[in-house]
Amino acid sequence: MYGPAMTDTDDLLPIGLEDRLPAEARKATHAMRAALGAMDSHGYDRVRPPLIEFERSLAGRMDGVQTRRLFRFVDPESLRTLALRSDMTPQVGRIASTGLADAPRPLRLCYAGDVATITADQLDPARQRLQLGAELIGADTVAAASEIVMLAVEAVEATGARGISVDFTLPDLVDVLAADAFALAEDRIDAVRRELDTKDAGGLVAAGGEAYLPLIHAAGSLGDALAKLRELDGGGTLATRIEALETIADRIGARARVTLDPTERHGFEYQSWFGFTIYADGARGALGRGGTYWIKGSDEAATGFSLYLDALLPALEGREPAATVFLPLGHDPSVAARLREEAWRTVAALEESDDPRALGCSHRLDGSEPVAL
Amino acid sequence: MYGPAMTDTDDLLPIGLEDRLPAEARKATHAMRAALGAMDSHGYDRVRPPLIEFERSLAGRMDGVQTRRLFRFVDPESLRTLALRSDMTPQVGRIASTGLADAPRPLRLCYAGDVATITADQLDPARQRLQLGAELIGADTVAAASEIVMLAVEAVEATGARGISVDFTLPDLVDVLAADAFALAEDRIDAVRRELDTKDAGGLVAAGGEAYLPLIHAAGSLGDALAKLRELDGGGTLATRIEALETIADRIGARARVTLDPTERHGFEYQSWFGFTIYADGARGALGRGGTYWIKGSDEAATGFSLYLDALLPALEGREPAATVFLPLGHDPSVAARLREEAWRTVAALEESDDPRALGCSHRLDGSEPVAL
Repeated sequence: MYGPAMTDTDDLLPIGLEDRLPAEARKATHAMRAALGAMDSHGYDRVRPPLIEFERSLAGRMDGVQTRRLFRFVDPESLRTLALRSDMTPQVGRIASTGLADAPRPLRLCYAGDVATITADQLDPARQRLQLGAELIGADTVAAASEIVMLAVEAVEATGARGISVDFTLPDLVDVLAADAFALAEDRIDAVRRELDTKDAGGLVAAGGEAYLPLIHAAGSLGDALAKLRELDGGGTLATRIEALETIADRIGARARVTLDPTERHGFEYQSWFGFTIYADGARGALGRGGTYWIKGSDEAATGFSLYLDALLPALEGREPAATVFLPLGHDPSVAARLREEAWRTVAALEESDDPRALGCSHRLDGSEPVAL
Repeated sequence: MYGPAMTDTDDLLPIGLEDRLPAEARKATHAMRAALGAMDSHGYDRVRPPLIEFERSLAGRMDGVQTRRLFRFVDPESLRTLALRSDMTPQVGRIASTGLADAPRPLRLCYAGDVATITADQLDPARQRLQLGAELIGADTVAAASEIVMLAVEAVEATGARGISVDFTLPDLVDVLAADAFALAEDRIDAVRRELDTKDAGGLVAAGGEAYLPLIHAAGSLGDALAKLRELDGGGTLATRIEALETIADRIGARARVTLDPTERHGFEYQSWFGFTIYADGARGALGRGGTYWIKGSDEAATGFSLYLDALLPALEGREPAATVFLPLGHDPSVAARLREEAWRTVAALEESDDPRALGCSHRLDGSEPVAL
């Protein structure tokens, strides 16, 4: 609306922290409410955990929270180390296993709020993000995964994003095959996982994971990738997983393109049998991730997803404010109130010199009716 | 909805930090959106500043920010001290004088977000609050003050609160009288202010402020208090201020009770000629404050207010979620989608054993229609 969308942050704001000026703020607020609306319509109740917790509580409730990435400080009240949340998922897990421990299961919760990390990714300097998501607590079945993937797609659709795609993964695939089909020694599993992460065929063979070789080229559209998995899976060890992925994809139907990268693990370290990443046309990288997991501490099964609004915003069109009518000095306040009830925006003159156009008005009140400028 | 509104925080959360469970979160979200809607309808554009800034930037932009109350930490990137915001008003002032420096005036901005302090008030242990407010930048006239007070009343009304009252104050009254009417020496002004703060008649006389004595008993309904001010103000020094307060009160009309405490200063240290506090029936103390001030750094005049949602929530009725229909296994997803479009909430069965009543459903889908349970 006025000048660049972000302020010049060189001196004013620490690196990775930005203001959202009106046009960006309007987009962010609209997208957040639309996504939360989709989650609410599927029965997900919003909870609002605090910005700050004990560091141990944030870090202890889920694997993958790196304490060195947290903004930390000693609390003069408790003399314990507090931290600013870097992820709301463990907070929702804490709520489910404490304040809502007695609520019936499956428990559907959603959340939205700012999270911050002291160091940013090299690819993305942002140190604060607007995270939102949903958690289905007490269930990690195929039905739960289907609901959560569909909900993630609907939440992204509700923001106005198009060209949605979902990439599935099977986080425990290496372990399952090692135990059941490939008879890989337990002390070799980590090495095999690492070589699969880098898709290094030579390294994989050297690590004793020759049987896993076909997985290096198994990523692609769901149909193709599942065909390759079936081929690999002579003993039927993966049959239930393959069927599960087909069920989840059927539910999505034509609403999103579905791919499978069976050995992808990045960001899924804490997940159990199923994970997914969601994308949309025009977005900056992945919008978010989800999957099945165990809540640490309570050992309760759960399925959920998180979206990062900052990645999504570039994919969304700008939103104009409502038509705005300028109210000259001496206008009738009851007319102005009526217009606001009819969803007009009003901007009242404070001085004779106020300029309706400069103040963003499209209309001017003339007697009891708005007249286009 | 489930058990107590807040979790047992003794061990789980640091003192003064709480979860909002579904019922409380629903109230907070509704109130915040309603108040923001009122501000938007008057042409106030929302901005979203970051959670964290350089400490100097937060503290340097407005008097009254106490750095010892900020959550602070050293930024490994810049090696400078960062702080979690304790007040969004200076952030909006910074935006107005940087990213929106070239936007036409008067500039109308609003904001809502979490703020935190490391130490709480003795009366209120909360260390995190949900603050929202509006700033009218480039104007501190009577017209600006009238708009802002009216907007604060409308924002509180929009949340559903009733029995609103507004208490005016004149933050520079002692100085104005000292210079013009009472010929009080400048080095006596601080002492006189202190004695007026504690309403200590003996101390006031001892401090050389005998002329100010009637102000100790001048607080009350606007009419009575202004009559006392007029009596005190033989020379007409206060005539424009008295007229201003009457104009602001006229604008409010019957929508709020108006009182005046002419010498009240607590929380108004950084304000210029006008300040106000807003209350509502059933709220926990004051809902918020506002007034005219100068933005530090840019020396631009401004008028604004802040509300604290945590004080307001006890005054508001609980809000029920939309009517919720249980979707049995094997339901038609297109029927469910149609119901959500008609503003039903749906909760889908994941297993045969899912209990519709326990999951908060009021209806059950039977074929294509919801049937009351």
